[in-house]
Amino acid sequence: MMIIMSTEASSDHIANVVARVEAEGLHAHVVYGEERTVIGVVGDIRFVNREQFTLMQGVQGIVPISRPFKLSSREFIPNDSVFPIDGITIGGPELVIIAGPCSVEDRVQMLETAHAVREAGARALRGGAFKPRSSPYSFQGMGEEGLELLAEAREATGLPIVTEVVAPELVPLVAKYADVLQIGARNMQNFALLNAAGESQHPVLLKRGIAATIDEFLMAAEYVLSHGNRRVILCERGIRTFETSTRNTTDINAIPVLKNLTHLPVILDPSHSTGNWQYVSPIARAAIAAGADGVIIEVHPNPERALSDGGQSLKPERFAELVRQLRVIGEAVGRTVPPAKPLPVQPAIVSQPVEG
Amino acid sequence: MMIIMSTEASSDHIANVVARVEAEGLHAHVVYGEERTVIGVVGDIRFVNREQFTLMQGVQGIVPISRPFKLSSREFIPNDSVFPIDGITIGGPELVIIAGPCSVEDRVQMLETAHAVREAGARALRGGAFKPRSSPYSFQGMGEEGLELLAEAREATGLPIVTEVVAPELVPLVAKYADVLQIGARNMQNFALLNAAGESQHPVLLKRGIAATIDEFLMAAEYVLSHGNRRVILCERGIRTFETSTRNTTDINAIPVLKNLTHLPVILDPSHSTGNWQYVSPIARAAIAAGADGVIIEVHPNPERALSDGGQSLKPERFAELVRQLRVIGEAVGRTVPPAKPLPVQPAIVSQPVEG
Amino acid sequence: MMIIMSTEASSDHIANVVARVEAEGLHAHVVYGEERTVIGVVGDIRFVNREQFTLMQGVQGIVPISRPFKLSSREFIPNDSVFPIDGITIGGPELVIIAGPCSVEDRVQMLETAHAVREAGARALRGGAFKPRSSPYSFQGMGEEGLELLAEAREATGLPIVTEVVAPELVPLVAKYADVLQIGARNMQNFALLNAAGESQHPVLLKRGIAATIDEFLMAAEYVLSHGNRRVILCERGIRTFETSTRNTTDINAIPVLKNLTHLPVILDPSHSTGNWQYVSPIARAAIAAGADGVIIEVHPNPERALSDGGQSLKPERFAELVRQLRVIGEAVGRTVPPAKPLPVQPAIVSQPVEG
Amino acid sequence: MMIIMSTEASSDHIANVVARVEAEGLHAHVVYGEERTVIGVVGDIRFVNREQFTLMQGVQGIVPISRPFKLSSREFIPNDSVFPIDGITIGGPELVIIAGPCSVEDRVQMLETAHAVREAGARALRGGAFKPRSSPYSFQGMGEEGLELLAEAREATGLPIVTEVVAPELVPLVAKYADVLQIGARNMQNFALLNAAGESQHPVLLKRGIAATIDEFLMAAEYVLSHGNRRVILCERGIRTFETSTRNTTDINAIPVLKNLTHLPVILDPSHSTGNWQYVSPIARAAIAAGADGVIIEVHPNPERALSDGGQSLKPERFAELVRQLRVIGEAVGRTVPPAKPLPVQPAIVSQPVEG
Repeated sequence: MMIIMSTEASSDHIANVVARVEAEGLHAHVVYGEERTVIGVVGDIRFVNREQFTLMQGVQGIVPISRPFKLSSREFIPNDSVFPIDGITIGGPELVIIAGPCSVEDRVQMLETAHAVREAGARALRGGAFKPRSSPYSFQGMGEEGLELLAEAREATGLPIVTEVVAPELVPLVAKYADVLQIGARNMQNFALLNAAGESQHPVLLKRGIAATIDEFLMAAEYVLSHGNRRVILCERGIRTFETSTRNTTDINAIPVLKNLTHLPVILDPSHSTGNWQYVSPIARAAIAAGADGVIIEVHPNPERALSDGGQSLKPERFAELVRQLRVIGEAVGRTVPPAKPLPVQPAIVSQPVEG
Repeated sequence: MMIIMSTEASSDHIANVVARVEAEGLHAHVVYGEERTVIGVVGDIRFVNREQFTLMQGVQGIVPISRPFKLSSREFIPNDSVFPIDGITIGGPELVIIAGPCSVEDRVQMLETAHAVREAGARALRGGAFKPRSSPYSFQGMGEEGLELLAEAREATGLPIVTEVVAPELVPLVAKYADVLQIGARNMQNFALLNAAGESQHPVLLKRGIAATIDEFLMAAEYVLSHGNRRVILCERGIRTFETSTRNTTDINAIPVLKNLTHLPVILDPSHSTGNWQYVSPIARAAIAAGADGVIIEVHPNPERALSDGGQSLKPERFAELVRQLRVIGEAVGRTVPPAKPLPVQPAIVSQPVEG
Repeated sequence: MMIIMSTEASSDHIANVVARVEAEGLHAHVVYGEERTVIGVVGDIRFVNREQFTLMQGVQGIVPISRPFKLSSREFIPNDSVFPIDGITIGGPELVIIAGPCSVEDRVQMLETAHAVREAGARALRGGAFKPRSSPYSFQGMGEEGLELLAEAREATGLPIVTEVVAPELVPLVAKYADVLQIGARNMQNFALLNAAGESQHPVLLKRGIAATIDEFLMAAEYVLSHGNRRVILCERGIRTFETSTRNTTDINAIPVLKNLTHLPVILDPSHSTGNWQYVSPIARAAIAAGADGVIIEVHPNPERALSDGGQSLKPERFAELVRQLRVIGEAVGRTVPPAKPLPVQPAIVSQPVEG
Repeated sequence: MMIIMSTEASSDHIANVVARVEAEGLHAHVVYGEERTVIGVVGDIRFVNREQFTLMQGVQGIVPISRPFKLSSREFIPNDSVFPIDGITIGGPELVIIAGPCSVEDRVQMLETAHAVREAGARALRGGAFKPRSSPYSFQGMGEEGLELLAEAREATGLPIVTEVVAPELVPLVAKYADVLQIGARNMQNFALLNAAGESQHPVLLKRGIAATIDEFLMAAEYVLSHGNRRVILCERGIRTFETSTRNTTDINAIPVLKNLTHLPVILDPSHSTGNWQYVSPIARAAIAAGADGVIIEVHPNPERALSDGGQSLKPERFAELVRQLRVIGEAVGRTVPPAKPLPVQPAIVSQPVEG
């Protein structure tokens, strides 16, 4: 941290700041400039209340030097975090393609979609049972019944489940069914929820808030990591800007920036970052070309009948075409998309041995 | 809602859309233009899944005609909502000035500030016991102990208490102490929390999210109102833009826009909307001049020692000066700032009757 | 400027940076931190290419300490700039209210509006003869004929004229008629135009670009000032954000921020910053309450017939009401709005002496 | 256009609006809803002043149905515009890679860079001779001398020249040397400049303004196109948002959105859209994967010595590596990057015939 003194600061002002810095157990290093003086503060300032300095007489402002996050930073862990989730690996050379409907709506829709996305090459299944909706009058999700349908789809296809949790008290319930707890954009700074997800030790897919800076995004991850839960996947899903041609603005820059700053895996959600199925495939390709570790895509067998976000959902055949494109783009940047996961071995229906 | 057909839409496409509209129990009204056809949809579409139409063949898009909120709208309730909270009135000709520290830190700080702001003319006391903080390493508030100090300050000064609640399971605890439940900007779309606050039937001060549109802000209020809880105060507290000279950008336009759209009282928080004590007084004056029903201001007896947000806190004497200015500005726009609330009558220490 | 070294920077990297700094005639001051080293650079860096340092090995980034503008800064000129323009004074205790139509449309409209705004208390007259329009198919202004009508309106009312200039080669023409050259938001970084306006030595009303930071705004003023032209008025007119309820977002914070950073007069244009006549009066009041030196308001005798921006224009009677409100608000913050300017003395129409 | 009536509109109000619509030579089609009435306006409204309707009694607002641009729209010209520029083709299957320094600085730098980028596979050469700079104290470019060096580089390498023009009166000069006139982001709504470039009939590379919507971007192109100049290349170069980790936010969504709305070629400038050389290659790859017709990249032989924007410039060898990547990504989306352009045949130096 550097403390910038104003041009009118007196030597007493400077001495007072230096004394306060030393009183915090830090070291002050004074640089006398032609126009103004700057005081470099040496030591671990993460636990110090920095604002106290901004209010001292003669101080113009402070400039942080280090980024505020630690456990998520590459300076702390230089190598990519690679971790397994229920038979698939996140963060390694294999790209992770997660797909499924926005909401779980019924058994047929869920199983049909799960099989379709598995065959197309998806490695994990998404689907919302608890839905945060802007309007209290909109469909809010099937709740636990939806979780049960997701679990059945996992049984049938072998795909691990990613599903959203919207309140701290729901973490145990959702964790009972889900392989990955999704924390949505609106809850990125719901710290009670982040803490509960951290304590669960369940893998977490954390979406960036629509107005969150990259620093804030990594600080939110830090909440989860600080509970010893290291399996955090970061998901860019578009930010809010002045442009209204698309629902959000995909911050594609965030992909290489995050890969530079953090060791955590980074994926992109082009369904939400564009809000329009026509733009999902180009932006999914862009994400992989920019270095993302995967994508999460909304797929619905009958988008115009979807109870939520149908307008941004791909049909299964279009999704299959996209997976083929991602495989080629992936190869161009040294990544692979493995073929469809084999169906789980179903327990043989053993006929009752006939006695006698 | 208007459904805009693309220039290539066929008469079959149009007929299909009309049929779907009618199947939803609505009426379709077709307007044939020179370039394209538009289908007007008549009926209550709030509970209809509109996206189904965007995906039908030949449809280019939909244009909503009505705003999505209802209970909060002036069309539903034309007159200003005016309601009492513990001896003060919100939404009427009297401006409501709420003041106090960002965080409750200790008993002396809290009582000292409470007395100072009461004398200066504040009508309610703010102070955070549960603090949402970007960093897990920052001070997170005193919790219930802080609530007890707030209650003691109310006893001493007669000022009702406004304090933040950060998780649904904390609503009963905070409601036990607080007169008004504050829902912070980061939780504006924490729907579980909005529902819990709505059910509590406690007055709610709802802050606008830093990237929330005015429509989303009113939809969040709608969550609270839909539980029959009518005492909602809206608080503009700055939005996030490209400008970095101030912590946030005060959306002063939101004051007259909200007063136009909704009957709910609207106040402004210049401490957060500027993030700098130097700009708090000018922006508080601007809020009143623009028609706000009040302001909420951070005041700290010793800002440079504050555990949070000291940089945006006013000292008590500067706050007292601001109240004097607001009284004059208020008069210019037909509002009043009453003098300091009288101290509550303390139970007389009745001397033991002497026998004999 | 501080040069921040990365955590892996070697002592050679540091030595190289120091050598480069010294080679530029500056002084380097090295602060060795626990995690990283920071090099303070002492000397006038305004003419140094700072980016050269960001690319040196071991450098993580640079942090500017001083603001980049000079002639416009309060550090350079501590007292408010107050200057006369054709009989009125800008930047002093008298608030400057500028009013008139968006575009000059015809003689009757122009003269009628000029008289109406003068009587209501406007001190200067606005009106566009050259109009920058998003669409090539929209009305682009009357050109020189419009300038002549403005000059006639000045003759009739005594009000000085503020009108926009949109290209460097038009500066001499516009300066022939106008008392103040307006440079519009879209041209805030049209440096050829800024230079031409600076060279003209004519007073300049410079509008902030819709996405310009305050630093960039002051740097644009610096272009004009660097030609020795000191009469620059800064005009906040709304910035572009995600909010669409109003055409732009009034950055009311910019008023006290600019008053803090610069000695130049600062006014606000609530017509463009809201885009809706209903919000013009509240936001004009807010501007004065926040410390602005004046406002510029669109007034049209028949807004629904206006050729441009009718939707944000006040009718003359509503404008007169606003001036009365601004007078009261102004008094509350120590400013005055003088009564209507007296009409200029018309040369007496001397009747020809009748012979005989 | 739809005219939305307020809920309190009377039948007289509706009749008045209908009469005004008919008076403009348009047809009105009234849709009576349960809550409010909507009036569909049929006819060409591009030349009608729409705001007149917003101010009529009983009108709540208007909703445009058609996009405002015409000549640039796919509805007007369905097929991609493909056009040749000095031996290369823009908008066809061949990707266009334009590269070169931010500024022309001297002869050696320019020729060295030109040869390096040609060998790496660039098809055109960029370099600024006139530089718009935020600060009047920064290097403003070499002017005509820079244009001469660019022309010499074209002679030597055969690469067509793209260079910026910053004022209408400079168009003839720049057009004398350049193959493509670049109009920079700051000048996207400098309409005098757009008109001059349109009239020149020279190919134009138009950069999107940092806060321009896609509609405004296409309306700016419309200014050039309306002069009969059809050779316009659109260039996304990043927009301004709240995120500060990169200089701008690359609006990657704009690539497929523009390809959907317009027939004009669309390229991306990852140097400006990121502002950091480390992110240029990933974002260039993303652009091609998303469907861009090319990229424009800053390359400098010695970035740390560059007079402008060195921090975002690639070294030639890194650029060559990027071209190899773009060739592979391009193939994945059906595009090609041809090998290096052959050097132009130099006129043989004929030795003087010796007499005698």
